Amino acid sequence: MPLTTIDSLQNPRIKRVKGLSQKRNRDKEGQFLLEGERELERGLAAGLEATQIMLCQEFFKHGEVSEALHQQLLQSSTPVVYLAKQVFEHCSYREHPDGFLAVCNTFQKTLDTLELSSTPLLLVLESLEKPGNLGTILRTADAAGVDALILNDPVTDLFNPNVIRTSAGVVFKVPTVVATAPETLDYLNSSNIHSYATTPATDCLHYDASFTGPSAIVMGSEKDGLTDFWIQNCTQKIRLPMHGQADSLNVGAATAAVLYEVIRQRR
Amino acid sequence: MPLTTIDSLQNPRIKRVKGLSQKRNRDKEGQFLLEGERELERGLAAGLEATQIMLCQEFFKHGEVSEALHQQLLQSSTPVVYLAKQVFEHCSYREHPDGFLAVCNTFQKTLDTLELSSTPLLLVLESLEKPGNLGTILRTADAAGVDALILNDPVTDLFNPNVIRTSAGVVFKVPTVVATAPETLDYLNSSNIHSYATTPATDCLHYDASFTGPSAIVMGSEKDGLTDFWIQNCTQKIRLPMHGQADSLNVGAATAAVLYEVIRQRR
Repeated sequence: MPLTTIDSLQNPRIKRVKGLSQKRNRDKEGQFLLEGERELERGLAAGLEATQIMLCQEFFKHGEVSEALHQQLLQSSTPVVYLAKQVFEHCSYREHPDGFLAVCNTFQKTLDTLELSSTPLLLVLESLEKPGNLGTILRTADAAGVDALILNDPVTDLFNPNVIRTSAGVVFKVPTVVATAPETLDYLNSSNIHSYATTPATDCLHYDASFTGPSAIVMGSEKDGLTDFWIQNCTQKIRLPMHGQADSLNVGAATAAVLYEVIRQRR
Repeated sequence: MPLTTIDSLQNPRIKRVKGLSQKRNRDKEGQFLLEGERELERGLAAGLEATQIMLCQEFFKHGEVSEALHQQLLQSSTPVVYLAKQVFEHCSYREHPDGFLAVCNTFQKTLDTLELSSTPLLLVLESLEKPGNLGTILRTADAAGVDALILNDPVTDLFNPNVIRTSAGVVFKVPTVVATAPETLDYLNSSNIHSYATTPATDCLHYDASFTGPSAIVMGSEKDGLTDFWIQNCTQKIRLPMHGQADSLNVGAATAAVLYEVIRQRR
């Protein structure tokens, strides 16, 4: 049976897809839009549930990966439609689309279902604002092998198109939980995990803390850093040495520096 | 004498200012556009030469800093004009402008005029593409106290508005040189500085290299990593431990992880 091609921007399915660029619609529908061959491949491999696949062969790179993924999608139980070029461009949020889009169910772990290793390493991010920073940090968290990422009062959600893009599809691999700071602290305390708040308000360099036990690294927002809650209630405050101006580190760079010190100590 | 207010988008000075958003015009004129109260303050403090100041008081934050900077600029020898709101918005590259713009002379050090500390730490970036990454790395380089940044075959120039913005004005503090990879290697060799090429093509983790002597960390582009030139000619290859997917670290995050290991070893 030949597959449908949608060639009208007025198609109700297309209008619904466009709506998923807004956080409130993602929250309401429990769905988000996933774009990109690599992202889709990694998402499906990680168990992501797609409910609608949308393709445009004119944009395919026609390498081995896109051909194999194309066949895999056609043979899956998820409905596939083709979009006319201008309809695909209308739905895409990329400058150079590669012809793969999917509507997927959002997912989220909860603190009580997290599976931790014997010496857990967690990363807690408080009110991060910039999608690019969250995406970069997801990649670093994956590279560093963290057990889970906990987002406190997130300003940017995990399913923001720019988070997915910047994370290079790693967003599907790192278990992520949304929780308040007090919920997070209760969880860490009851799991005997020490919390390390990264803040300029201490003399203790991160090199002088010991991360060989169960550890959670807590990082604040780009603009305001950590809230008083974490500064007052953490197990230990740490700071990065700073030779330049006080505010000179980007939160993604600071997170990488601390996580790689944890890895060094745990070798 | 009352100062001029420019209220026409057709004003030749405004057209010239807009032209500076293009790299080819910046190269031709030897000038660039600097935006922002903090950036202008830091730039001037670092000895940047402004040739034209453009202000719009309607956008001022009217805090102590903007008032003091406003007075300082009015009393300097650099010509000041006010721009009407829509003219300022036309020239600005920010979503929320703060009323400060300046045309400044570009600047650049050369390898032979670099002033190095007794145990130099240099950072070499090869063909970096994304302005945001270059800006973030400039902040990390400043925080880590590197002696200089060397850009090999830069795709993105230092005076790109997004580099200046992401660097938070630090672009004026870190001595930066543009040079080819062979010129850079000659310079490092003749200065007895070891070059450490960061690449997945080695088993040597960065923790196992010694950075206590004169060192240059060499990082490749986002897409292709380092060229064969550096991989073949460096003193030592190093890689970051990677628990996740092979390409899972952003170049800014990787740079921070390596530079902070250098700082740790040099304490």
